Amino acid sequence: MSKNDPKRVHSRRAVLRAGLAGGAAALAPLSAASAQTNPANLPPNVADWTKMLGEGVAARPYGKPSKHEAHVGRRDVSWLTASPQSSVSFTPLHEIDGVITPNGLCFERHHAGIAELNSADYRLMLHGLVDKPLIFTLDDIKRMPRVNRAYFCECAANSGMEWRGAQLNGCQYTHGMVHCVMYTGVPLKVLLNEAGLKPKAKWLLLEGGDSAAMTRSLPLAKALDDVLIAYRMNGEMLYPENGYPVRVVVPGWEANMWVKWLRRIEVGDEPWHTREETSKYTDLLEGGQARRFTYLMEAKSVITNPSPQAPLKHKSGFTVLSGIAWSGRGKIARVDVSLDGGRNWRTAKIDGPAWDKALTRFYYEFEWDGSELLLQSRAMDESGYVQPSKAELRKYRGVNSIYHNNGIQTWQLHKNGEVENVEVG
Amino acid sequence: MSKNDPKRVHSRRAVLRAGLAGGAAALAPLSAASAQTNPANLPPNVADWTKMLGEGVAARPYGKPSKHEAHVGRRDVSWLTASPQSSVSFTPLHEIDGVITPNGLCFERHHAGIAELNSADYRLMLHGLVDKPLIFTLDDIKRMPRVNRAYFCECAANSGMEWRGAQLNGCQYTHGMVHCVMYTGVPLKVLLNEAGLKPKAKWLLLEGGDSAAMTRSLPLAKALDDVLIAYRMNGEMLYPENGYPVRVVVPGWEANMWVKWLRRIEVGDEPWHTREETSKYTDLLEGGQARRFTYLMEAKSVITNPSPQAPLKHKSGFTVLSGIAWSGRGKIARVDVSLDGGRNWRTAKIDGPAWDKALTRFYYEFEWDGSELLLQSRAMDESGYVQPSKAELRKYRGVNSIYHNNGIQTWQLHKNGEVENVEVG
Repeated sequence: MSKNDPKRVHSRRAVLRAGLAGGAAALAPLSAASAQTNPANLPPNVADWTKMLGEGVAARPYGKPSKHEAHVGRRDVSWLTASPQSSVSFTPLHEIDGVITPNGLCFERHHAGIAELNSADYRLMLHGLVDKPLIFTLDDIKRMPRVNRAYFCECAANSGMEWRGAQLNGCQYTHGMVHCVMYTGVPLKVLLNEAGLKPKAKWLLLEGGDSAAMTRSLPLAKALDDVLIAYRMNGEMLYPENGYPVRVVVPGWEANMWVKWLRRIEVGDEPWHTREETSKYTDLLEGGQARRFTYLMEAKSVITNPSPQAPLKHKSGFTVLSGIAWSGRGKIARVDVSLDGGRNWRTAKIDGPAWDKALTRFYYEFEWDGSELLLQSRAMDESGYVQPSKAELRKYRGVNSIYHNNGIQTWQLHKNGEVENVEVG
Repeated sequence: MSKNDPKRVHSRRAVLRAGLAGGAAALAPLSAASAQTNPANLPPNVADWTKMLGEGVAARPYGKPSKHEAHVGRRDVSWLTASPQSSVSFTPLHEIDGVITPNGLCFERHHAGIAELNSADYRLMLHGLVDKPLIFTLDDIKRMPRVNRAYFCECAANSGMEWRGAQLNGCQYTHGMVHCVMYTGVPLKVLLNEAGLKPKAKWLLLEGGDSAAMTRSLPLAKALDDVLIAYRMNGEMLYPENGYPVRVVVPGWEANMWVKWLRRIEVGDEPWHTREETSKYTDLLEGGQARRFTYLMEAKSVITNPSPQAPLKHKSGFTVLSGIAWSGRGKIARVDVSLDGGRNWRTAKIDGPAWDKALTRFYYEFEWDGSELLLQSRAMDESGYVQPSKAELRKYRGVNSIYHNNGIQTWQLHKNGEVENVEVG
């Protein structure tokens, strides 16, 4: 098992260390972060690209990353699942920055593989407790009023392996079932208004066009609030693995409800109790009872850099911790960072957009003295909700759950710059 | 010459039509925009994708668009240029929505092809009127404080063929040398502070690592304001054609100054008068004199849908006009739309982020009665600047310019839904 294997388990309880110099360091001058090399020392083996004529504009109608970035990709965990068709691949959170996830790197979760719909064949049926059942083509949907909104999309099972302790070594594996793109879509209420709701309407069934026929019940109040019938991500049409040509966007709620390859919406008066809201996507408590319809993704955060797949390359000096925070309740109000496993907290800087129910980027700059640190981040949202420790979470939820683990993550930064997934006790 | 050939010329002066019904239409109910098909009428030839098991998660570490979207791509104009290495490809503005341009669709403009730098060999030299010359590796740059900001990047020659009248048929060709992504980068002032500026420092030279050794002079005041040394776009590393691994971001100023494959910054006390700021990227006026150092990209807008490459598919009824607006002076304050070639104007709805110096999306919803229309949009920015008509622009600038054409675009919408590039006079 290699050092970067996600299965590498680090469940030992790290001891809190006293007297962390990093804990007291003020923001130091930046000089330690720059090479300060004298230009005369430029290594002779650096290529001079000005002597080479490059490829022309006609080569690639659709661009792609540099071949030198081939290591940046989604990673799957086929060893966890029965087949690659019912499996997951993770966003490389440690290899991206800002708040927009590039379309090519959005995590995947399929229950029967990627349905390769084409847009000409696409139909969306809207029926049930409506005045006028409707079928929409893709052209119909594209012709309607639309909005552009960025939202995080997080699988309820994100961080699910961590319920029983530090399990997976790598931010991509512990937290990579989340992405955030700018969606273009029609508010679902526009479609419902077109069909006309009957007085008894209270719930919607969303059905996917894949061979899992993914079905989830959605309360009407949410449907009339901010749910989108989306067909674009970051400006272009949805990628096949994200539901091309049409998926549901349910802001702040678990990704399983964001039905992909959407083919049918039925309006009813009670939930359908489908497989994905009874035997799956429920939270088994200690006493044997299960929480159901736990849609909301609570406030959460993680330090993406440094992290086990992204060690520090310097041995001390000016250091930027980078991470993401998000909450299904609304905007992120504040993120705090600890360098000593939760004893002392400092407020991080939020940079870039801090949208409603979207990934929010934070940075914490400090002078690292080269000692071992226990790195944590803690998100607070505009509702006042504070991300709990794993211990607090287990107090109420036990360790039988798979879903909805939003506990505080701890990374142990070693003196050599390497980082491990650990638990503090 | 095919109908969609960008060379197809439409310079005839369209006559303004009186009594356009669209001009008087209130926002109609949406019913005309939905198919209203009875579910029983679902065509029997629509594929049932629930019967086909899809591809698994392991197939693509880096995703790509559906094969059914293969028509969406940058288009080059090799017939305009001596070689594909010194040429341009255009963003398909009519095929995207919102304000974020996907990385794979950002227009290209190269002067000697794409420099295929690798990150290990990358060096940035900072020298001249500084206390301490420095060389930075990519790791040095990535270690520094950084910010995430979305900005439009527009070639000064965008819409340049239109100075002498309507020339190119397609929004992609008339306006497609603009894109907008979320950059991650180090403020240039951070690097300059590291090196320490000498008192006489007033100008910077930016030099690219491509074989054109692209060089532009940048005033120090701008460098200390909002210029970024960027290495990421929409979260991931820059694509090769956009300057991998490091480019300059000069918010609101012409894209030629956004030097790609940046290898050198020299600090001096006056501009360098390079080829790209003397014989090129200057604006020849009627009298034979040329405007120089015209960095700023003034407020501009264009209706992207409908447009010549994106005709309306319906013959009348509820219609959404969609477009983008941007200004190098700051935020877009308002966009107005005319359906009658500039006689009457209505305020469009701005949707999504309206960031400083970034693409801003607008929509205008109306009931189309099926008659011919002359569609225009007009941007106003927060400084009070109003996008001029082409006639106003020519009054001051003549028709000898190539660069900085921000005149109002007119599309003629025909009864059959097709759209032409025309001039109104």
